[in-house]
Amino acid sequence: MRKISLTGIKPTGSLHIGNYFGAIKPALELAKDYDARYFIADYHALNSVKDSKELATYIREVAAGWLAAGLDPEKVVFYRQSSVPETFELSTILMAFTAKGLMNRAHAYKAAVQANNEKGEDPDAGINMGLYTYPVLMAADILLFDTDVVPVGKDQVQHVEMAQDIAQAINFNYKKDLLVIPQALIQESVAVIPGLDGRKMSKSYNNTIPLFAPEKQLRKLIMRIVTNSQTVEEPKNPDTCQIFALYKLFATKEEQDALAQRYRAGGMGWGEAKEALFQVVNRELAPMRERFEALIADPAGLNKTLQEGAEKARAIASKTIARLRKAIGIDL
Amino acid sequence: MRKISLTGIKPTGSLHIGNYFGAIKPALELAKDYDARYFIADYHALNSVKDSKELATYIREVAAGWLAAGLDPEKVVFYRQSSVPETFELSTILMAFTAKGLMNRAHAYKAAVQANNEKGEDPDAGINMGLYTYPVLMAADILLFDTDVVPVGKDQVQHVEMAQDIAQAINFNYKKDLLVIPQALIQESVAVIPGLDGRKMSKSYNNTIPLFAPEKQLRKLIMRIVTNSQTVEEPKNPDTCQIFALYKLFATKEEQDALAQRYRAGGMGWGEAKEALFQVVNRELAPMRERFEALIADPAGLNKTLQEGAEKARAIASKTIARLRKAIGIDL
Repeated sequence: MRKISLTGIKPTGSLHIGNYFGAIKPALELAKDYDARYFIADYHALNSVKDSKELATYIREVAAGWLAAGLDPEKVVFYRQSSVPETFELSTILMAFTAKGLMNRAHAYKAAVQANNEKGEDPDAGINMGLYTYPVLMAADILLFDTDVVPVGKDQVQHVEMAQDIAQAINFNYKKDLLVIPQALIQESVAVIPGLDGRKMSKSYNNTIPLFAPEKQLRKLIMRIVTNSQTVEEPKNPDTCQIFALYKLFATKEEQDALAQRYRAGGMGWGEAKEALFQVVNRELAPMRERFEALIADPAGLNKTLQEGAEKARAIASKTIARLRKAIGIDL
Repeated sequence: MRKISLTGIKPTGSLHIGNYFGAIKPALELAKDYDARYFIADYHALNSVKDSKELATYIREVAAGWLAAGLDPEKVVFYRQSSVPETFELSTILMAFTAKGLMNRAHAYKAAVQANNEKGEDPDAGINMGLYTYPVLMAADILLFDTDVVPVGKDQVQHVEMAQDIAQAINFNYKKDLLVIPQALIQESVAVIPGLDGRKMSKSYNNTIPLFAPEKQLRKLIMRIVTNSQTVEEPKNPDTCQIFALYKLFATKEEQDALAQRYRAGGMGWGEAKEALFQVVNRELAPMRERFEALIADPAGLNKTLQEGAEKARAIASKTIARLRKAIGIDL
């Protein structure tokens, strides 16, 4: 039997090219080797997205986006966290076995406290209980599905370790292997995707290229990429150029070699490089964009897909919860 | 329309006479004036009861005990918290709107920290997240049922205030009266029920008279009540005697007057007073004990009663959750 992987997707913004290469593509690769499960962590998003229209939009976009990018809901389990209420019951159970000291050591919480201290504020100023208890809810997400591996970046290994700690506390207390101890699957760091201003592409820098921007807007954005002031005549270095870095993500080896030659030969202006970039980006994104737009245009169909995923997920989750309820004495 | 009251019952021990007069009787009185709801807070109990058999026993005993004491499941809503999973989803929602600073001020948490400090331990030593987040789960219990009033002792007013704070934060954020703001119904303090050793009857003092002790054990316990060394001949003061204090709870006015006279006249030994006490206690408890034993002997019937209550509760809870999910953008 294949091992189970679980990937959480937080709907806190519109998908961009950085997400596509940094998160979506590697996560979809998991389905080759694992019994892969993916969920939209919508209640995690509630901690930061307090506007209902915004949250609903992000959920829809993320769902449609991953499907458009190739997630096959027939082959994997794809569901919304909020459609699996067993998650919240498990989270409540886990609370009783989670030392408060463990939460105090969580990176995200500690960073928020440090920021407060630096501003001379109360250490807990502006921190809500959703942020503070985040690792417990995440442990519930993981443990509910008998997850073997959780793909994470190096900075998120702690979350998996916390899920391990909590699961072990429960297994130890009831002297039974009630919960599968998950392992972190540390993903090789993907090359940094440069944004429009040359810094890492990130929503917080406001320098992203949206994954599903309409063709016109996509061209406009690519034309806005910041470049240096070299003249058309000067030969240019592809290896230090963010246009070329992006080009490499989308172009074939031959195309890359050809454009690199144009760079080095001189006589190529930035506009030409950007146009070449737009062509390859649009070539890959256009069919995805079309699928995305079709999915977004059919909310009932999208909901149906998510609902079917939720049913598959609940069939698994309800077994875990039944097992736990029995073990802790809640089932009479 | 009558206002809604909600009473939580934590199954962390077997019921005793102190519970009966201090909690059960006043709570059942509420049904006269309110649309009364009662729930067994079984997941709250999990914070302290980590033995599954013990927890299951307490849940059964508390359920059967309240029914035996006169709770009419046809007229009120009586359910287990664990049967209403909407509670845990609401709790997760509330977390996102609960300032961590609010939790830091909770009495139970502060008392635990102080005890740690006094022992020179880490402030959070031995404190689990269930205890720390207790007020949020309790707010969910309350807010889920559009509760108008929560009967509490003076020391628990803070819990209702926290539920108010959290509900107001949500109503304010979404600019809508999504949640009913509950009010504390401060119960007049019931006279302290003395235990076997004269101190307040309490599980933690191990001085209780169990509400459903078999007749033989009941007599034995009452005979063990600590008395002073006055001789049979000496006149005795009923007003300073814990036997008499207990007697007053069960006896008619005439019986009280008659026994008081026996006290003052002299010639009455403690054994006689204890026998008189046993008679009135047993008179009131015997039919309740019979009902209790019948309920305990029929687990399927007890479960059915609780299940029917859970269905009534979920019919209410699912509406609250649907209203909230729509408002926050989780319902697409």
